[in-house]
Amino acid sequence: MATAVSSVADTCAQAKRAARALAQIETGVKDAALEAIAAALEDRMHEILAANEQDMMAAREADIGDALLDRLRLDDTRILAIARAVRQIVALADPVGEVIDGRRLPNGLDIRKVRVPLGVVAVVYEARPNVTIDAAALCLKAGNAIVLRGSSSAAHSNAVLARIAAEAAVAAGLPEGCVSLVAGGPRRPGRGREELAELATQQGSVDLIIPRGGEGLKQALQAVATVPVIYAASGNCHVYVDASADLDQALAIVINAKTQRPGVCNAAETLLVHEHVAAAFLPRVLQAFAAVRVAVRADRRTRAIAADCASSDLIIEDATDEDWASEYLAPVIAVGVVDSGEEAIAHIARYGSGHSEAIVTRDTAAARAFQLGVDAACVYVNASTRFTDGGEFGMGAEIGNSTQKLHARGPIALRELCTFKYLIEGDGHVRH
Amino acid sequence: MATAVSSVADTCAQAKRAARALAQIETGVKDAALEAIAAALEDRMHEILAANEQDMMAAREADIGDALLDRLRLDDTRILAIARAVRQIVALADPVGEVIDGRRLPNGLDIRKVRVPLGVVAVVYEARPNVTIDAAALCLKAGNAIVLRGSSSAAHSNAVLARIAAEAAVAAGLPEGCVSLVAGGPRRPGRGREELAELATQQGSVDLIIPRGGEGLKQALQAVATVPVIYAASGNCHVYVDASADLDQALAIVINAKTQRPGVCNAAETLLVHEHVAAAFLPRVLQAFAAVRVAVRADRRTRAIAADCASSDLIIEDATDEDWASEYLAPVIAVGVVDSGEEAIAHIARYGSGHSEAIVTRDTAAARAFQLGVDAACVYVNASTRFTDGGEFGMGAEIGNSTQKLHARGPIALRELCTFKYLIEGDGHVRH
Repeated sequence: MATAVSSVADTCAQAKRAARALAQIETGVKDAALEAIAAALEDRMHEILAANEQDMMAAREADIGDALLDRLRLDDTRILAIARAVRQIVALADPVGEVIDGRRLPNGLDIRKVRVPLGVVAVVYEARPNVTIDAAALCLKAGNAIVLRGSSSAAHSNAVLARIAAEAAVAAGLPEGCVSLVAGGPRRPGRGREELAELATQQGSVDLIIPRGGEGLKQALQAVATVPVIYAASGNCHVYVDASADLDQALAIVINAKTQRPGVCNAAETLLVHEHVAAAFLPRVLQAFAAVRVAVRADRRTRAIAADCASSDLIIEDATDEDWASEYLAPVIAVGVVDSGEEAIAHIARYGSGHSEAIVTRDTAAARAFQLGVDAACVYVNASTRFTDGGEFGMGAEIGNSTQKLHARGPIALRELCTFKYLIEGDGHVRH
Repeated sequence: MATAVSSVADTCAQAKRAARALAQIETGVKDAALEAIAAALEDRMHEILAANEQDMMAAREADIGDALLDRLRLDDTRILAIARAVRQIVALADPVGEVIDGRRLPNGLDIRKVRVPLGVVAVVYEARPNVTIDAAALCLKAGNAIVLRGSSSAAHSNAVLARIAAEAAVAAGLPEGCVSLVAGGPRRPGRGREELAELATQQGSVDLIIPRGGEGLKQALQAVATVPVIYAASGNCHVYVDASADLDQALAIVINAKTQRPGVCNAAETLLVHEHVAAAFLPRVLQAFAAVRVAVRADRRTRAIAADCASSDLIIEDATDEDWASEYLAPVIAVGVVDSGEEAIAHIARYGSGHSEAIVTRDTAAARAFQLGVDAACVYVNASTRFTDGGEFGMGAEIGNSTQKLHARGPIALRELCTFKYLIEGDGHVRH
């Protein structure tokens, strides 16, 4: 069980043993274990709430601020939502065993490329205790053992959640060590970075680390990791309104991409407008930004148009080079006018983070050039960048979003938590 | 052109610009460029031979040994073979633009997952100058710009080969900077590691580094790389002869896997034999090893059987723990007896490098258990491990072989030199 194991290396070695067994366990057993976890969360709600209250008290004493307090807080509704999310993962197709490719080779050998679990996945996360269960359920469904490392501020909540998940999973037939938590105990000042470094160098047992946290965590990992890491995305996403755009659609898409949930990585941070529609479109969109209190950082041409039209509610400043590169994650947007689609693509190549980019256009050539020319995980035509999400894409839940180009690009869901192997069958075949 | 550019960073930045153009170039243009490279190699053979002679003279003076001299040497036949290999890549299907997956989402958005080039691939290699062209042709076909870094001992040969490839490609319509070479000049002592570190930290422009060389190169890269690296495989490959094996097949497979080309990563290094067939099989296979001068490192049970049967030609010693972990790449094999398929799988889990593993069996349950239980890139039933190869697998030429689990596992061919992006098309879709 999670808390019985002493060192990070021991925990990971036990997870590796569990992973070898897990890789061969049938879908039905994995799904029954997830169902058991969901039921245990409901049954043992009082334990979870008691542990969470300990974390909340410590957090209030440490005066961590309302936003972080809210991220840390669990209540009946939130716990039921976590259990519901686990049941949604039960309903997803098992990625393990899927035949990706296959053929009979000219020499008669039969070859299949088959999806298999990665092995041991470590998830390092900050604050939100619900990640403990979300990540464990996704990893188990994909046949992986999971090693969790939460933050000390959520230590009691995470410890109870991981214990409940591990106990329910093992009782349902999954191997000991399939879910474990390091840094699960109460605060141990100074041990955090040391433990992270130990976890990030278990290349014999940990197959992948997924960090879910801010820049500090990313940099700490980059400095020490020898295990492969998939860094969660930062999203400096653009909406480009082409000369031929339907301006009603453009307005709806820009406002949705910027304001539907400004704090997430697929929200738009920059609006680019073709000069031919700047005079017609910018007054409308700036008025809309003013109405919903989105502050604007504008280039020279945008400011000139704004000067003629802007409502007194509009908050507008000059855009600096830093603005074009910023992921605001806030009700702020950079706005610029471009001479052409090529200029929009070049701007995105220079400043974008390769996450989600959209063009609004009625011109097939412009749409094609944008989708070919923009180097990003997701390239949209006439749709909001906000759709970049494993759930929206029909991949089920996601554990994060990748802007890397290797292995996983875009949503990291069940398939991305797998690798593959080639299975080759012959009848005494030797190479000549 | 390759040699006109000054610093590593400048070379990589130019390659990045080239990559943006290359990603959109049609298959026909890329194929014509490869054909032009093949023709230029034939036309300019005298230049290549003259440059190679400079490297050979320096190498003879430096007394580098016959094996390395042979790897360095080019002649008419070898240059024609390099040109022929380029034409084989022309014949392969273009991986770029391939639709990997796609559907209409419930909200009406159309989503396609489409294969696209990685961007800039850096290949770092030792000695053999033919890699210059092989790697460039594969990268160009997959729509990537390539930055080559060869060894100083092949500096003149590599510089001419890269220049010929770059000139032919650009004349055929590919962008300037699509093929470039760093460390292309003559020997500059001390600059090597510095340049490697500079190349390995160009995360803004280089998308992937593929090293083709020994442990020293691997360790040098691991210490400094911030760019993603796919390390070429070491292969500690096993053949397991099950209790139900056809022993004639087993003998043919073991001898082929060990001796057909002992110096490559898919050659077998350890033979495991089920105790039920040890007395029948080991005398035959040990005699065969003696006949072809393969030295044996044996466990206790194998030695006991060998004592009764072995020919005087057999070279046999006790196997140490180091033997089980060794990739000999030489006419040496470790041989052990196991009690069961599970013990064979556990041995492979402990000592294997996750490259290629084979079982010889007539028992479907044993075959299934081995393919499920062995965690390796390629798992064979009744076939030699020697088939692990992009060409053999129908993937065309390969640039290396990966034992990593992320992105590429097994042969690294055209598809593995690509990433993908999601293309999403709507009609004014916004998220609710």
